[in-house]
This record gives sequence, structure tokens and C-alpha cells, in this order.
Amino acid sequence: MMTNQEVGIKPISVKMNDHDNVTIIGNDNGLPAGMVLQEGVELLQRTPQGHKVALKDFQEGDAIIRYGEIIGYANREILKGGWIRETMIRMPEPPNLSELRHGVNIEPLEPFEETYTFMGYPNPDGTFGTKNLIGITTSVQCVTGVLGFAVEKIKKELLPAYPNVDDVVAIDHAYGCGVAIDGLGSEIPIRTIRNLASHPNFGGEMLIIGLGCEKLTLDRLNAGESESDVLFLQDRNGFSEMVDSILEMAKERLERLNKRQRVEAPLSKLTVGLQCGGSDALSGVTANPAVGHAADLLIRAGASVMFSEVTEVRDGIHLLAARAETEEVCKALIREMEWYDAYLARGLADRSANTTPGNKKGGLSNIVEKSLGSIVKSGTAPIVDVLAPGEKIRKNGLTFAATPAGDFVCGTLQLASGMHIEVFTTGRGTPYNLSMAPVLKVATRTTLSEQWRDLIDVNAGKIIDGGATIEEIGEEIFKAIIDVASGRRQTWADHWGIKNDLVLFNPAPIT
Amino acid sequence: MMTNQEVGIKPISVKMNDHDNVTIIGNDNGLPAGMVLQEGVELLQRTPQGHKVALKDFQEGDAIIRYGEIIGYANREILKGGWIRETMIRMPEPPNLSELRHGVNIEPLEPFEETYTFMGYPNPDGTFGTKNLIGITTSVQCVTGVLGFAVEKIKKELLPAYPNVDDVVAIDHAYGCGVAIDGLGSEIPIRTIRNLASHPNFGGEMLIIGLGCEKLTLDRLNAGESESDVLFLQDRNGFSEMVDSILEMAKERLERLNKRQRVEAPLSKLTVGLQCGGSDALSGVTANPAVGHAADLLIRAGASVMFSEVTEVRDGIHLLAARAETEEVCKALIREMEWYDAYLARGLADRSANTTPGNKKGGLSNIVEKSLGSIVKSGTAPIVDVLAPGEKIRKNGLTFAATPAGDFVCGTLQLASGMHIEVFTTGRGTPYNLSMAPVLKVATRTTLSEQWRDLIDVNAGKIIDGGATIEEIGEEIFKAIIDVASGRRQTWADHWGIKNDLVLFNPAPIT
Ligand SMILES: [Ca+2]
Ligand SMILES: [Ca+2]
Ligand SMILES: [Ca+2]
Ligand SMILES: [Ca+2]
Ligand SMILES: [Ca+2]
Repeated sequence: MMTNQEVGIKPISVKMNDHDNVTIIGNDNGLPAGMVLQEGVELLQRTPQGHKVALKDFQEGDAIIRYGEIIGYANREILKGGWIRETMIRMPEPPNLSELRHGVNIEPLEPFEETYTFMGYPNPDGTFGTKNLIGITTSVQCVTGVLGFAVEKIKKELLPAYPNVDDVVAIDHAYGCGVAIDGLGSEIPIRTIRNLASHPNFGGEMLIIGLGCEKLTLDRLNAGESESDVLFLQDRNGFSEMVDSILEMAKERLERLNKRQRVEAPLSKLTVGLQCGGSDALSGVTANPAVGHAADLLIRAGASVMFSEVTEVRDGIHLLAARAETEEVCKALIREMEWYDAYLARGLADRSANTTPGNKKGGLSNIVEKSLGSIVKSGTAPIVDVLAPGEKIRKNGLTFAATPAGDFVCGTLQLASGMHIEVFTTGRGTPYNLSMAPVLKVATRTTLSEQWRDLIDVNAGKIIDGGATIEEIGEEIFKAIIDVASGRRQTWADHWGIKNDLVLFNPAPIT
Repeated sequence: MMTNQEVGIKPISVKMNDHDNVTIIGNDNGLPAGMVLQEGVELLQRTPQGHKVALKDFQEGDAIIRYGEIIGYANREILKGGWIRETMIRMPEPPNLSELRHGVNIEPLEPFEETYTFMGYPNPDGTFGTKNLIGITTSVQCVTGVLGFAVEKIKKELLPAYPNVDDVVAIDHAYGCGVAIDGLGSEIPIRTIRNLASHPNFGGEMLIIGLGCEKLTLDRLNAGESESDVLFLQDRNGFSEMVDSILEMAKERLERLNKRQRVEAPLSKLTVGLQCGGSDALSGVTANPAVGHAADLLIRAGASVMFSEVTEVRDGIHLLAARAETEEVCKALIREMEWYDAYLARGLADRSANTTPGNKKGGLSNIVEKSLGSIVKSGTAPIVDVLAPGEKIRKNGLTFAATPAGDFVCGTLQLASGMHIEVFTTGRGTPYNLSMAPVLKVATRTTLSEQWRDLIDVNAGKIIDGGATIEEIGEEIFKAIIDVASGRRQTWADHWGIKNDLVLFNPAPIT
């Protein structure tokens, strides 16, 4: 075996907690056998980046500990210095929901004395927007083809005359008809559409395009009062008149929206969503801890912060329960976990269904390990509230907004909750974006940052290979959030105008 | 009361079957009290178009018969000439699936001696296309934003140089990750994407854009063999390179597709899908019977015809079982009904969830009545095959392709089954369209035809108010199908370029 010097590589490995009996390889291309890690262990075989190495000899049944928590049990003997692969680990049972205790680990964060502000568009109801958009809601999928045609025309013929308006956003979706409108869970997509329609980035203006015979009626959207905001295609004389009518209604709203000006607003008016997608084993080492620090800073500055992704916190729910500020918050956490457990059971899916091939390739052996790395991005603040999917945010501080973990479903629900900006961490890389609010992308690895330099906004990989601390990258993210929310900085995804469809979460059957 | 002459209206009413004890009002604005219908009955109150009038005195519990079948039981006394509303009807139990008998009502259609042909684009595998499209499949939603940007660029910068290519179609969807990939029913969305990717209108060319870490891996798409057809965004150096690579791959395919020329092909190479959406009580009186006649003509000319929409045939399944050519076909019909019964039960939705407010306003009291009117569009041919959702068509003649009834979900599944053109009947009106194959719209009412003259292709309302017979409109539809399939005629929806997203049917949970 060659020594580290002879190979010419400086080995990087990261142990997250003093109690851990594994460490994670940090080097870009992994490390060859024979390398001696800083923990004093010699690698028994080549081990890829992000993967775990045994810091002791494991007997069959020994607990494997990362983040100070048991992520599984060795299902065979594993020698010190060995690469621990997913097939060598037996998953622990998920935490029993009936045994959770709240408030065990409450550490209130000290508010900053300094007042932090951002530049937002004021709305009549006292909220602020981070973009100035004309939003067009649909009550049923049947109208999206006509609306798509009209939106193109609005962009080409109207928008250039209203330079203060950033964009036209059609909230199109596959809901509204051909669904069990009173089926189990159907309140979720309905609430989502209702709350998306009144997003603060739409400036208090509402415009709903319906067909006229759909199941999702206006009373279900609570939109019956102002009929001037609604256009039913079945009331129009043909396609051309439909398009003309939409343009006319858009023009009225553009006139008003164009007068909006950004003003200084306290950070208590800002709602930040956190999410991860395309995670790898470094997510929990670099990007998520840095985002966690940024979350703490935001909360100390008075903002509202939401984290989500039920299937990614389910296995670490005991850690969240301990941070629940009140018994009521803890019960709400349990309610959301139970709801999801039942939902997955109905469809014969289990929690192991979450981990993707990319996660595994990246070194995340199972959902327990992924959960622990995912929860870090919530920082350390007490949890003050829990939202059912798509409910509007109610409090400043840290809120758990229950959503599935799929990126667009989660993002859509966070938007419905009133999210102004999302911080999105990624290890494998995804060009994810939302049209309704900016998405700030944080990479877990320097290689990804360099490979996708025109998509990644912040490189948290520097924590492993650039001498930066978690706190420094956390501050960089905190500042970037305020700059992007204020319109002073544009995210890469917005620079390119990447547009993805929103996706509703409809747990009910379709018909 | 005034006589009919005094009011100055010629009453129109339609009884579908000699055994019926109700008739349907045909006049545009309904008819006032006192009018005497051609069945000799005097209206007791104003009755809207499409609604039912009692042709006898009903006692509580009496069967209400339409299409020669029981659509429900009177839940109160109803006098002769009375308007029968949905609240007056108790629904019958759905047909018991264990008691169905096959082959009771087989009436083989006589093949035409004349050979019917259409002008289609020949494919290497012996199939033919009705459009010449470049199709770009996605394996996960994460890529659709980048792909959308690339498609705009392809349309602007490449397509004009390839005049024989009709359009670029991105098969984007919300599947691929964040889903229970092995959950109950997950084979349906996976099969759908796989079969959409090889649709005959894509000329045998395949192009798949993936991310790289998604759950929907290439082996699940059976697309692993030809890696030159696949591009993973995670393998590219940033956004610009992603877009450039997609354009390069598109260009190669456009070169080949541009050489395609339509040739004469027998009708046995044509697959026609049938669907209804935004139905009213006239759907089962005018448009659907006319489409049923067209279906018979297509089958006599050798074509494949698919009808679908499980929730709309469930209550008339005994009529379909009777037309099942073999016991195997009957068993397959039962299998699909049972699957859907269980699916709806899991979500606590019942069959009554199908009928929309628009259906009811249009006079369709319940799903039984809607079913009977929906089934008529399958004509009279024996049913030779049954497809599970998204399976490829296997036979000429009449096939039941099991799908939900929601328009875009049904259309997407029919496309996956290889549909070349869809005939879509509508009473309330919907601007529904598909990008992958033309959609010929048939209106049930002259008023809709006139109101939407730039969207409706065929007016079946003439059967009620224009002196046309069901057979005449059926022939008009048959000829229009061949003309549109051959590129000699453009549908209105294609004229405007109305584009709707495809929607996958994913019965499994999302994670
Ligand atoms: Ca703590
Ligand atoms: Ca996610
Ligand atoms: Ca018959
Ligand atoms: Ca339909
Ligand atoms: Ca779309």
C-alpha cells in the first residue's frame, strides 16, 4: 500500500457527531484502499464520495450511528475501515408515534437586536410580494389549452407595455373534474388551488378561468363573491372570444399591478420555504446544515421559515417532537405522520419507497439516514406550528408544513402556504424551479457547483473542500435570501426563465 | 293554457326505445307548461332541454326506463307530463359482476366489400402515423423546465427548416420520482410513458430526456438498449450545454422525419378512440348514437376502434358483457371493473362521484343514465378485446380500453394504446385537445355548434332540429375521420394549436 503522500491525495472525511461510529468520505472521486483517514482508520477498499466507512469492527446486530442517531444495524460482520453499503444494513423500526414527547429539546433562539428588512411589493391585506406577477388560476384542466394560447398572447402583446410586472403565471393543473371531489383527502387539492390563487406575489389581484360544468365549483374555491374575477369559457362565443376576454381581464389587472413599487418591509413579513431534491450523502454534511444555520438566522431576524417533506422526517420524528413548542404542536405533528402512514399503507407502499437510486448511489443507505440529513436543514429553533398540506402560514418562527417529498408537489404546497422564496439543496443536481417565487439552489458539492455553474446559486461544498464553515455558508445563504427576495439578485433558474408546472397533491381517486 | 300553435314553438322530444316510459325535451330553451309533446303528453311545468318528462303516472318504487333499461326508481309519485329531476330518482344497484354472461347479444357486422384507405405516414415497424411529429419523452418531471426551454428553441430555430414535420411534442408529466414506484398500480403510469414514447405519430424515432437519479430508470421504460436515444441532464455541464445537446439530438431526428411522405394505407392500420366530455342529456340522443354508427362503419371497413371510461360503463356493464365475443373478453371486462371498484373503495369514493354539476344541469340524473348514453357510442359490434389502462391495441374491431373517464387521463391512455385520432362528443362544450393526435369534436346540440363555431367540427344536433338522421351524421363523422387522419382536413382545435398537457393515471401513492 502507498501512503497518503505517495498517492498525492489529501483524504477528507466527515464525522457529524461525537457518538458516530461511521465517517463519510468527502473527496470528489472517493478514496482508494490504503488511505488513512483523519480519524486514524485505514480504508479497506476504494470508497466513493459521500459513502460511509466503519470506524470500528461491527458484529452482526451492532448499531450503526450517524448524526448521533441509530441509522440501522449491521446485518453481517463489518471490519474497521470497511465501506458500509446499503445491503449491509438492517433498517430500524420507525419511531412509535404514541411514544413521542414534546418540548424535551427546546432551545429558543435569541432575536437579533438589529432590524432586518427586505424590499417587497406591498399588498392591500398587509402582506408583501417578492415578485410582481399576474396570476391566472384555473378551476379545471379543460381550460388550460385555451389559457396557454392566451398567455402567449399576453406575453407578446400586453406585457411589454407594463415593465413593472415580472411575468404571467397560469396556475394550471390536472384537477377540477374527473375526480372524486368528496373522496378521502380531496380537501387538499381544493385548498391548494384556493390558496395559490391568493398568493402574495399576485398583488391581491385574482383571475379565475373556468369551463362552466366542472366539479370544482366556485363555492368550493371560496371565490363566489367577486364574479368579476371569473370567466367561464362556456359563456363565451367560441375560441377567439374566449381569448379576447382573457386578454381584456388581464389588461385591467396589468394596469393596476404595473403601479406596484417595492418598499422596505420587516423580515417578519417574509416566508421562506426549505426543501431538498436529488440528495446525496453530503446533503446532510454541507448544504443542509448550512441551510439550517440560515434558518436560525432568519428566525432570529423575525421571519417565518417552513420545512416540509413528511416521508423524509418520519424516521426522525422523535427529534422534531422534542422541539415541538407545545403539546398541541406535537399532536399536530403526530396527526400528519399518522395521516401519511395510512395513506402509504392504503397504496401498499412503505417508507423505504422514498429512497431513490440516485440517493443510494450517492451514499444514502436508507430513509433513516436520509431523514437525519434532511432534518438538519430546519436548524435548531423550536417548532411553533404545523400546517396540514396547503394551509396558509400562521406564525413567525419555524413551522413544519406537511407535504410529500416530491419536489414539485412539495414546492406547490409551500407556495399555497404563502412561501415567498424557497431554498433548495441538491447533491445529485436538479434544474428545479418555480414560476411563482424564486428558488435559490444550494449545492452540496463543489464538483456539482462547477459542473452546473449556470444553475447553482450557492456552493456549500466549500465546507468540505474550501475551508468554509457551516456558519459562513449559512450567512451567505441568509444574505442571498434577502437579496433575491428584494429583487437585487436573480437566481440562475430565474435568469434562464425555467418554468415547471405546479403539481397538486390529490390523495383521492380520480374517476 | 295556450296550444302549441299559440305559443309558436314546435315541441321536440325524443324517446330512445319503445320500452321507455320517459321522453327527453329537445328544444333549445326547453318547453313551457301546457305544451303537448309528440308522444301525446301535456307538460305539467316548464322543462329544460335534455331533461326527462314522465310518459305515465309513476307510483313510488316504479322503474324509470330509458334506452330500454332501468335508470332508477321513482322515490315519490310523479304524474304523467311531469319533469323528472334527479332528486326524484333512487339509483339501482350496479350490475353484479359475478352474474354477467357473455355472448348473449353478438351481432357480427358485415365487412364492406369496398376497400377503405387513408393517407398515413409509414413507420419501419409496419404501423402508420396520422401526424409527423418529433416526440420527446421525459423520465421525470425535474427535466421539464429545461426541456420546455429547449422545445421553444427547436420550434423557433430548427422546425422552419423541416416543413414536413408538423410539430414538436414534449411528453411531460408529474411522474418519475417522488412516487411509490412499486406501489399498487404503479405499472400503469410506467406502461403509459413507455407506450407514449413509441407512438406511431413519432415515426419510429425515440428521444428520452432524463435527470439521472430518478426512480423511473431506463430498464423500467424498456429503453436501455439504445443509449443514443437518451440524454441525462446530470451528465451535462450546465444549462446551456443541456439545451444545446437536446437541440443536437432533435436535429438528427428532424432530418430523418422530414423525409416522411404520406402513402395510402388500409383502414385496418387506423386506430380510432372514442370519448365524451362535458356530457348532457342529448349526448345519448344525438352525438353518441351518431358516433356509434360511425364506429360500426369503421369496423366494417376494417379499422380498430377503442371506447373507454370505466366509470361511465360500469352501470351498463351487463350490456357490454352480452357483446363480449368470448368468455375471455368477458372475464377481462370483469377484471377491469373489479379493479376500479376496489380503487374507488380504497379512496372512499363511490360511483355517484362521476356525475358533474354540468351533467345534472344538462338533464343527466345519475351515472346509470349517463352510462347508457355513453355506451351508445360504441355502436353495435361485438367486443373483441379488453386493454388494461395504457396497453397497446392488439386487434381490429371493437376494443374496450379501460381508462378513467376524466378527459385528459382517458385521452393520454388512449394515446398510449396507439390511438391515431379521437372522436370526442360534448354537450356542455369543452375546448379539449391533444397534441399527439387530432381530436374531432362532435356537438350534441346545434346551439353549442353555433356558439362555438370555431371549435366544433361536427354538429350532431341536426339529428334533433335539422332533419338529419343518426346514420347521416354517423357517415359524416366516418368521412371526417378519414379526411383528418389523412391530413386533408384540419380539426378546429388543431387549427388554433390548442395544447393541453397529458395526464398520467397513477393510482399509487406519491412520497
Ligand atoms: Ca438542540
Ligand atoms: Ca424534495
Ligand atoms: Ca344488439
Ligand atoms: Ca371523458
Ligand atoms: Ca405544462
